[in-house]
Amino acid sequence: MSHTLYQKHEKTLKGALEAISTRACWSPFPEVPSGKIYGETARGDGFAAFEARIGKAFELAQPGADRTEKTENSPFGQDLGIRYPKPDLDELFGAVHRALKPWRNAAVETRVGICLEILDRLGRNPFEMANAIMHTTGQSFMMAFQAGGPHALDRGLEAVAYAYAEMTRCPREATWEKRVGKTETVRLQKSFRIVPRGIAALLGCSTFPTWNGYPGLFASLATGNGVVVKPHDGAVLPLALAVETARTVLEENDFDPNVIALAANGIDGSPITKELVTRADVGIIDYTGGSAFGEWIETNCRHARVYAEKAGVNSVVIDSVEDLKAATGNIGFSVCLYSGQMCTSPQNIFLAKDGIRVGDDRIGFDDAAAAIVGAVNWLLSDPARAVEVLGAIQNEGTLTRLDRAVVEGGAVLRASESMAHEKFPGARVRSPAILQVDADQKALYMREVFGPIVYIIKTESSAQSVALAAEAAREHGAITSAVYSTDAELLRDAQETLTDAGVPVSCNLTGQIFVNQAAAFSDFHVSGANPAGNATLCDAAFVVDRFRIVHTRVPV
Amino acid sequence: MSHTLYQKHEKTLKGALEAISTRACWSPFPEVPSGKIYGETARGDGFAAFEARIGKAFELAQPGADRTEKTENSPFGQDLGIRYPKPDLDELFGAVHRALKPWRNAAVETRVGICLEILDRLGRNPFEMANAIMHTTGQSFMMAFQAGGPHALDRGLEAVAYAYAEMTRCPREATWEKRVGKTETVRLQKSFRIVPRGIAALLGCSTFPTWNGYPGLFASLATGNGVVVKPHDGAVLPLALAVETARTVLEENDFDPNVIALAANGIDGSPITKELVTRADVGIIDYTGGSAFGEWIETNCRHARVYAEKAGVNSVVIDSVEDLKAATGNIGFSVCLYSGQMCTSPQNIFLAKDGIRVGDDRIGFDDAAAAIVGAVNWLLSDPARAVEVLGAIQNEGTLTRLDRAVVEGGAVLRASESMAHEKFPGARVRSPAILQVDADQKALYMREVFGPIVYIIKTESSAQSVALAAEAAREHGAITSAVYSTDAELLRDAQETLTDAGVPVSCNLTGQIFVNQAAAFSDFHVSGANPAGNATLCDAAFVVDRFRIVHTRVPV
Repeated sequence: MSHTLYQKHEKTLKGALEAISTRACWSPFPEVPSGKIYGETARGDGFAAFEARIGKAFELAQPGADRTEKTENSPFGQDLGIRYPKPDLDELFGAVHRALKPWRNAAVETRVGICLEILDRLGRNPFEMANAIMHTTGQSFMMAFQAGGPHALDRGLEAVAYAYAEMTRCPREATWEKRVGKTETVRLQKSFRIVPRGIAALLGCSTFPTWNGYPGLFASLATGNGVVVKPHDGAVLPLALAVETARTVLEENDFDPNVIALAANGIDGSPITKELVTRADVGIIDYTGGSAFGEWIETNCRHARVYAEKAGVNSVVIDSVEDLKAATGNIGFSVCLYSGQMCTSPQNIFLAKDGIRVGDDRIGFDDAAAAIVGAVNWLLSDPARAVEVLGAIQNEGTLTRLDRAVVEGGAVLRASESMAHEKFPGARVRSPAILQVDADQKALYMREVFGPIVYIIKTESSAQSVALAAEAAREHGAITSAVYSTDAELLRDAQETLTDAGVPVSCNLTGQIFVNQAAAFSDFHVSGANPAGNATLCDAAFVVDRFRIVHTRVPV
Repeated sequence: MSHTLYQKHEKTLKGALEAISTRACWSPFPEVPSGKIYGETARGDGFAAFEARIGKAFELAQPGADRTEKTENSPFGQDLGIRYPKPDLDELFGAVHRALKPWRNAAVETRVGICLEILDRLGRNPFEMANAIMHTTGQSFMMAFQAGGPHALDRGLEAVAYAYAEMTRCPREATWEKRVGKTETVRLQKSFRIVPRGIAALLGCSTFPTWNGYPGLFASLATGNGVVVKPHDGAVLPLALAVETARTVLEENDFDPNVIALAANGIDGSPITKELVTRADVGIIDYTGGSAFGEWIETNCRHARVYAEKAGVNSVVIDSVEDLKAATGNIGFSVCLYSGQMCTSPQNIFLAKDGIRVGDDRIGFDDAAAAIVGAVNWLLSDPARAVEVLGAIQNEGTLTRLDRAVVEGGAVLRASESMAHEKFPGARVRSPAILQVDADQKALYMREVFGPIVYIIKTESSAQSVALAAEAAREHGAITSAVYSTDAELLRDAQETLTDAGVPVSCNLTGQIFVNQAAAFSDFHVSGANPAGNATLCDAAFVVDRFRIVHTRVPV
């Protein structure tokens, strides 16, 4: 029965396996929110489905969840008022444990088939999810649709593909035969069993709950673990929708739906996260979020395998460009996109004090800095376009930190301003602040200031720019970096220095591709080689330790 | 130049890659210490080479190593008096860091080729190593030759094969092309770079320094890391020989030999292990040894990726047998082999109080226990055979613990006795103690008592026997288990229960195959799924996290 799902989706799986080995551009989930692809009523139906959730209890029929609590408010101003199960963890874990045996013992193809079906189900109509993502994270609709829907599903599928590949590298059975003497031969039949770690706790983030959450969720599920999903208080609905779909598919295929469950906090305080992750029966923790709590988990949860994506300080080094407008336009878009709330957003732009070469000319530092400010101003000059690019600020705390950082120092080249959203008057929209600092003002820029803030840093030379970008990565973590240079040798050195510091490098990006973007099946998101995280979305290391192989030997 | 080595050994590598995917019996290293294979003078030459080391300084021309210290004494009575470099770690690490850049940047084939050459060089004449293993670990010559030579090289080769497979799964270059609009296409050239963690600290053990040490050593080396080898005080020579060969091969191929270095303690105290592993520039720690220090490392070395094999309590469950003599003969050999000093040696034998079924008959508990004691007595009745099987006790502390354990409780079915070794009068040889305890005397048997001691535990039923064996594995760790039963259902249940507890199961072993033996390329040694360790020799998880992949993107 469940093998049917594997066969149904085998072509997709094979496509994913091919893509992760070629690293070429590939996706089975269309990223254009078009009626031609998804059906003419899909957009409206998705919106209606989202609206129907508002102000109600989100029903999951989970054990131990008689209390329900509301947590979220939309960064666009709407009060969602959805109430989620806040479970008694002992009761919930009891139910997950009871559900696990058949899941653990199911064939790899059965589990993988079910994961593929969940992804397919979520992918068939991503419009409800798009609205859920938008009104929890503050992303604009288009970004919410793409990053929260198809691109997140890509990352989930990628994890399933890695899990399948790693679980099937070792045969299930083998005959081992050895001559042990002149006449004697020993012959053993060996069976290799996938033994999952047990129960995974998935801690969601508030900005990309599905994109950052699906990899761990599907990697754990495919490898036979149970999953307890604890979304961020500010973005529960997206992961609740995913859990709902997963439970439905499990149940349809005669598995206990409690293989996966939701555990939400209430807004009343009394958070359950620490109680959850310190449980001895949690074998895996997937975490995306701030460094402080990430480090708390790493210190206090040594009983579990922890996969953590924390914060970083991303850099852009501008040494020289062919076309100034093309370069600054690209950088300007990168810093504005979702108001710097992506873990891939650049924060620090390094410019040498002597300015930069542009084609055969040279412009001074101030002109180069002004060109970046000008690119941002141009992008935000059309209010309708501005709010589409900026989205809304996910939470108030981001603005408090921004305002504090501006007071702390740096010359204000561009002030952050509140902007009106025509459609959502209550939306929390803020344009980026751009501050100029000197290379020795490390206390200001050698730290993550999450949100719409950019430091332009005046350095002695491009060599110092690269060195400081690498230092930031090594000391504080970094998830992306960009280098602009027409000097092949400088570019090669920068690539080596920055990749040595564990940060991927995008070179001379212009046009419709941005340093913030990470493509599933091709780009490794977070290297694990600097403090920004210890795990990559996705590679073999992200899945192989979620299960172990334990063998039996029987003489034939 | 170094690619030549890859080509030279490519057939061996392909053989290893094939074996780890079929899990069939395979080895390129002959395990018979025969003159026909290794050359008629090899045995004598190897012994002479070993003798020539005695009482001298072991020269490695390492920086920071002006002090040399002697550490070992042979468990067979001989004073080795070899002095090893005890380096200043700052100076040594400085040299390793300086050596690393070309090693890290070398092609995968270059590094893998060099690793294969080192293994080949060590495999060509394993007799010096056999003597070194014998006179440090206390293994008899035959075991020292096999486990310390060819079988250890198998495990090293296995690690190199896994490292090669995992490093080459992702292409080095890819072109990524995406339509981003009606007319615009983005085309990126991506490069994927292997970024190793840095410097690995390898902490050797005293019983199987090469067998347990090579996997980590070669996995780290192949993936571009430097390696600082800190052998156990009681077994320095085997790893010193390996380091010497590795440095020679590196130098011959124009790499700085300081990519790998030896760091030994002195017998005067002032151990360097804690100073070594807590260094911030140690990125990987491979450890084999006692649980207490393993846990200390796990707690205190969170800056590094730790692969630890610790202790466990291995069980045998006897429910029913076809042939009592065949079963007890096999078990008797397993408990005597190297005096229970293998991490795979059985310690606890569970027998139901009603005894066991033998073919169509039934024998009582006491008769079954007596049969095991009888098998051990028979095996040790020929003194020459006895010392070949038992070997010598690696260190005095093992006997102290044994004697204390005997006093602590249990009915002595067989007392441990000192035995004379005809060839080595000073050899520390002790036969195993066999104690009978009740199932509820958990304080006695639910712990590791390393060395020649066996508990026969009287249980209510075979079901309880299996449950207790699983409990021991879950709570205290276990690396092997054996079950004897002619009841297919019981056998199936026991396999599920014990593999769930993360312990491999050998069923109904008789003849020339023993529960203690783990075959490279086929058996996963240590599951990582119970407290006996967090890593497996070898699987993908053992290598994939020793490096990260960091990419660059450049528009084409």
